[in-house]
Amino acid sequence: MQHNSHFCPYFHRAVEFIGKRWSGSIVREMLSGPRRFTELRGAIPDISDRMLCARLKGLEQEGIVERRVYAETPVRVEYQLTDKGRALEKVFAAIGEWADTWPGCGGSPAGGRADTDDPGAA
Amino acid sequence: MQHNSHFCPYFHRAVEFIGKRWSGSIVREMLSGPRRFTELRGAIPDISDRMLCARLKGLEQEGIVERRVYAETPVRVEYQLTDKGRALEKVFAAIGEWADTWPGCGGSPAGGRADTDDPGAA
Repeated sequence: MQHNSHFCPYFHRAVEFIGKRWSGSIVREMLSGPRRFTELRGAIPDISDRMLCARLKGLEQEGIVERRVYAETPVRVEYQLTDKGRALEKVFAAIGEWADTWPGCGGSPAGGRADTDDPGAA
Repeated sequence: MQHNSHFCPYFHRAVEFIGKRWSGSIVREMLSGPRRFTELRGAIPDISDRMLCARLKGLEQEGIVERRVYAETPVRVEYQLTDKGRALEKVFAAIGEWADTWPGCGGSPAGGRADTDDPGAA
């Protein structure tokens, strides 16, 4: 496993994209199959319709999630992972393993997510 | 590799903590050994002293990074990963592999990191 000490913009973008608020949990939920919007909302505590909608759009734009519309009555819309999205399974398994081994990371679920500087830091 | 469809708060916290702005790249830099503050700042483009300071404090509080002070003249201060921090190597290797396979994720390095809702999303 090689780690050079050069900053890698691909890594940097990827880790921050994956860690963007709620994105990880949304993708993780879809690893076990396609989901409707209401199923996703029900599976993820505290996420608003607006935030879920925004995240799904972002994930679609990145080619991680695909939105499928089925011409039924009523119309059925499902979200599912693309190949790129499913390829995150290994990443998420590693994160899950780390989180199981070192639980309690990150404080409260909503805590410590502000991207502003810590006002206490000099 | 098991994925149940239950929301996992440990996973949720871990993925968002790892993905917090700059944290991933700071930890990645330390995977190859202890670093001084100035070395970290030099290795990570565009990070401010203030942000690096705040992130290092956060990583210390989470038990991922350890700050060591050597009583030399002048005093030498180094940051290094704890066991918990080094355990992220597997996670980062998986993210690196994914980023190499699917490059270009996340837009510009500074892009798309606001935690506010997308104003365009309904």
